[in-house]
Amino acid sequence: MAQNVYDDADFFARYSRLRRSVDGLAGAPEWPTLRSLLPPMASRDVVDLGCGFGWFCRWAADHGAASVVGIDLSERMLARARRDTDDPRIEFRREDLDDVDLGNGRFALAYSALTLHYVRDLDRLVGVVRRCLVPGGRFVFSVEHPIFTAPTAPGFVDGPDGAPVWPVDSYLDEGERETDWLTSGGVIKHHRTIGTYVAALRRAGFAVEALVEWGPSREQVAEIPSLAVERHRPPFLLVGASAGDPGPDR
Amino acid sequence: MAQNVYDDADFFARYSRLRRSVDGLAGAPEWPTLRSLLPPMASRDVVDLGCGFGWFCRWAADHGAASVVGIDLSERMLARARRDTDDPRIEFRREDLDDVDLGNGRFALAYSALTLHYVRDLDRLVGVVRRCLVPGGRFVFSVEHPIFTAPTAPGFVDGPDGAPVWPVDSYLDEGERETDWLTSGGVIKHHRTIGTYVAALRRAGFAVEALVEWGPSREQVAEIPSLAVERHRPPFLLVGASAGDPGPDR
Repeated sequence: MAQNVYDDADFFARYSRLRRSVDGLAGAPEWPTLRSLLPPMASRDVVDLGCGFGWFCRWAADHGAASVVGIDLSERMLARARRDTDDPRIEFRREDLDDVDLGNGRFALAYSALTLHYVRDLDRLVGVVRRCLVPGGRFVFSVEHPIFTAPTAPGFVDGPDGAPVWPVDSYLDEGERETDWLTSGGVIKHHRTIGTYVAALRRAGFAVEALVEWGPSREQVAEIPSLAVERHRPPFLLVGASAGDPGPDR
Repeated sequence: MAQNVYDDADFFARYSRLRRSVDGLAGAPEWPTLRSLLPPMASRDVVDLGCGFGWFCRWAADHGAASVVGIDLSERMLARARRDTDDPRIEFRREDLDDVDLGNGRFALAYSALTLHYVRDLDRLVGVVRRCLVPGGRFVFSVEHPIFTAPTAPGFVDGPDGAPVWPVDSYLDEGERETDWLTSGGVIKHHRTIGTYVAALRRAGFAVEALVEWGPSREQVAEIPSLAVERHRPPFLLVGASAGDPGPDR
């Protein structure tokens, strides 16, 4: 079973106070870019891998999805997700993404935000996602950028001229990284290179349509100056992939 | 016109002493991986963008290419390239990749090693390459990795525990970087993110088949210990792209 730090009471309390937990999609500065990678979802079936509080599931239903399945491992997050909607098109399931089975040829969109770096067996999951999609279906996801996850001691430091630099090491040594994000140690993430994500998608039969190394735009920095430092190294990687064979109705 | 530092006498003398200049492809540790991305070239036409001393052109001819066009801006490099072969299938042309025209639908492979970071207008060149390829043709190239090109002061420094770290800044601020590689200042390279390379390929109609963030393997480090530090941040990005529409004979 994958790690389930989100059900730790202290971690959950801290996570719940993040801007993206309070304000949902509007509190995630990468959301406008991630949204631009999404296909139309009117009357289509959607699955969200690592749905958390269910913000995206509700957004997809609001944008006409025929059904939305939200999957998460955290009971605490699913409890709040279920509390926050009574839309009968949305179903929340507690499942481990390292074991999940999503069936064959059902979904037009598999979406995953900042979750895949918790998954141990990326190849297995990408294969599961590929099989669950209809022809021409899309897989759109965000993960922490490998520049962000690589360092053994992540964090900005002052460079020679006093400006911040992000010291990278061990980039090509993939595997577990234990960080103290929102806690003192114990959050395990899996560092993978961009090349590894692309190779996993290609092996499963996906075409890579878009790959965005996301950082805040200059406009976003003007609005929220604390984001400025994030332009020195992208915090997130956003990917849009297509299951190919689009079919006549795409 | 693009910068032509390779025709500077001092730079050229220093460049000529690099292991990859003396030993050719065998002296480039990323070559085995780049080679694995190449299509068969027997009886096909090949173009090499930034051919330098012509090592790859001769290799392609030795592997059965019907014809090979090697393009470079440096007179000094082309003079040596011409000196080192009398194969009538190989033609060397002096052209600026920011202005070059390669015609339509001729080549099965466009190859480029560590050159595109000198090109100012990437979108233009990628479009030129796309048009020059036959259906199903391949574009295989290496460039300096954006982690390598991003920093305003590139170079390993000691981290808190004394181990080397590579300080990254300005990753999302694309554009010119002036470095002192083999000279004291004055070499201008264009820093671009991986996302920008992928977007340019997609816009031109390429499918991204492979994307490798290359660093030395553990076996290579065992053989050449000085390469070890390169595993902390990949020096090169290797890309294989397909022009699509492979046709029946592929």
